[in-house]
Amino acid sequence: MNPTCPMPRAETERVLLGHGSGGQLMAELLGKVITPDLLGPGVAEDAALVPFNGGQAVLSTDSFVVTPRFFPGGDIGSLAVHGTVNDLAMRGAAPVALCLAYVLEEGLPIDDLARITASVAAAARSAGVPVVTGDTKVVGRGAADGIYVTTTGLGALLPGAHVSAAHGRAGDVVLLSGPIGCHGTAILAAREDLGFESEISSDSQALHRLVARMIAAAGPDVHTLRDPTRGGLASALNEIADAAAVGIEIEEALLPVPAPVSAACELLGLDPLHVANEGCLVALVSPRAADAVLAAMRDGPEATAARAIGTVTAGPAGRVTAHTLVGSTRVVDMLVGEQLPRIC
Amino acid sequence: MNPTCPMPRAETERVLLGHGSGGQLMAELLGKVITPDLLGPGVAEDAALVPFNGGQAVLSTDSFVVTPRFFPGGDIGSLAVHGTVNDLAMRGAAPVALCLAYVLEEGLPIDDLARITASVAAAARSAGVPVVTGDTKVVGRGAADGIYVTTTGLGALLPGAHVSAAHGRAGDVVLLSGPIGCHGTAILAAREDLGFESEISSDSQALHRLVARMIAAAGPDVHTLRDPTRGGLASALNEIADAAAVGIEIEEALLPVPAPVSAACELLGLDPLHVANEGCLVALVSPRAADAVLAAMRDGPEATAARAIGTVTAGPAGRVTAHTLVGSTRVVDMLVGEQLPRIC
Repeated sequence: MNPTCPMPRAETERVLLGHGSGGQLMAELLGKVITPDLLGPGVAEDAALVPFNGGQAVLSTDSFVVTPRFFPGGDIGSLAVHGTVNDLAMRGAAPVALCLAYVLEEGLPIDDLARITASVAAAARSAGVPVVTGDTKVVGRGAADGIYVTTTGLGALLPGAHVSAAHGRAGDVVLLSGPIGCHGTAILAAREDLGFESEISSDSQALHRLVARMIAAAGPDVHTLRDPTRGGLASALNEIADAAAVGIEIEEALLPVPAPVSAACELLGLDPLHVANEGCLVALVSPRAADAVLAAMRDGPEATAARAIGTVTAGPAGRVTAHTLVGSTRVVDMLVGEQLPRIC
Repeated sequence: MNPTCPMPRAETERVLLGHGSGGQLMAELLGKVITPDLLGPGVAEDAALVPFNGGQAVLSTDSFVVTPRFFPGGDIGSLAVHGTVNDLAMRGAAPVALCLAYVLEEGLPIDDLARITASVAAAARSAGVPVVTGDTKVVGRGAADGIYVTTTGLGALLPGAHVSAAHGRAGDVVLLSGPIGCHGTAILAAREDLGFESEISSDSQALHRLVARMIAAAGPDVHTLRDPTRGGLASALNEIADAAAVGIEIEEALLPVPAPVSAACELLGLDPLHVANEGCLVALVSPRAADAVLAAMRDGPEATAARAIGTVTAGPAGRVTAHTLVGSTRVVDMLVGEQLPRIC
């Protein structure tokens, strides 16, 4: 009788870091485990519309687990305000109120808590949205990493807004409000001593006033808005191409990647298209309105360098391609797995 | 020369487990560090009213960090739904929509996530409130304890509701909807092998239909509603006595403490008045409406054993006293420090 090795035991499936990436693994987890039970299939929006009081309420929630909690250009408090304000804005809503929930680890310096809380308050004040209620939980040492912040926003639809991830149409112009790659590389630089800390700050900022200008300029001709956070611009474009069953073609030469971001990405082996942003948006806009929207975007501090970066095509549905600098065409995929955990 | 010991260094102030207790330490943290910046002083409500669309929106948010994540009578998923539905209800609101945010630890079994998600979905369905949007973040091993759940609720004020922590008046009757001490002792029993696991289940349940019956029966004569969660009935009574600047007198003989809860509390050195509940409420009700409200409470499965337990007095403001079983009177204090971390 031949000796036999013990059979490997089937390992229980477990949550992986990549499940939080904003990329393909995460889409699988949501599709298999979370959304069918809760939300039904195919939810691809940053915020939900809810009939309320004869109108529509807009709701969005996000937990923030970024490390380090203080970084060039912001901290977990300001990021939590901007992130949720922006998720409301991407549904065409103005923020009305924010809720704030803290999970604190025993041992967190009270000074850090005070500084983060002041930052939440300042960011909310600057965005013109009140924090109306909150919650604080404390867990033992080792059961969290200092502080996690969950913000939930209530928003009111802007008059004339009719945006959705699914509204892109062939012929639409793809607009981008500003440089990409800053947030993710700033976080990485803050974590490790990579020598470019001084050159890169997070782009974290509130985009609701930018969106209000865009909607005021073109109303429902603004078809789709998306802030390319986790998973970067590549994942955002794939999601909206998928939701609208269209193709998207972008021009690499038109992508605004700051030189220090390029250098950092090259050093770290990252594609700037997969790096998280927290202060820019991508929009699909009807061609007849593109110039007006672009002018409205540039007419404010959040998007002075807004530009067109591509066009929407009839298909193949869900396919994003880039014309490269050397004249070839490549497929731009969603981020698979985890590039950079705890980026937001 | 005498030898000297090194001077103890001033330790940085740090977050303590007791800051999450729902008791006095937590009130101090909120009062000193969190609310002045964010919410202004003196916020004592479970949910906030926000003008919206010509009416009022009600918002409440809570993070859930309970351990273990599965316990007799529920799990972190159902608890997160009930907790937020109840916080809305304590402001006199019916739940309209829920938002759900997960922080997952790398390594969490997918089966646990699926089971908790199914439990969220079942509890929400049973409460008749949809989960409309969500978020999922993943942190590395050791940076969380399996799963933390943050739920945020949007609610609509019930017609006739006019409740607030500050509305109690001298002469009001204090009503309690059901037995106390079950949730906290069930969690403790599930954590340790104490020999009474089979006898105690958490009381976790949604209370919005109970509140709807109470408001339908007496409208604004229902002055104050509170669910005595963290910090227990004692802390809830102190908070509402404080907010309304009234005294509250309760009769210990009338407190419904199940025998297994009494036994467990005796064994563990706990006061049942400080043990968390997740499925009962205390109400301050105008005396002329007390009978009608009590009848309405008993007319449903959540509060068949509802009863009056005391009265509101003109003062001393903020003072809660209990007439004891042996005929004396004692002051019922808020919980100080941490009795039982991660109870919800």
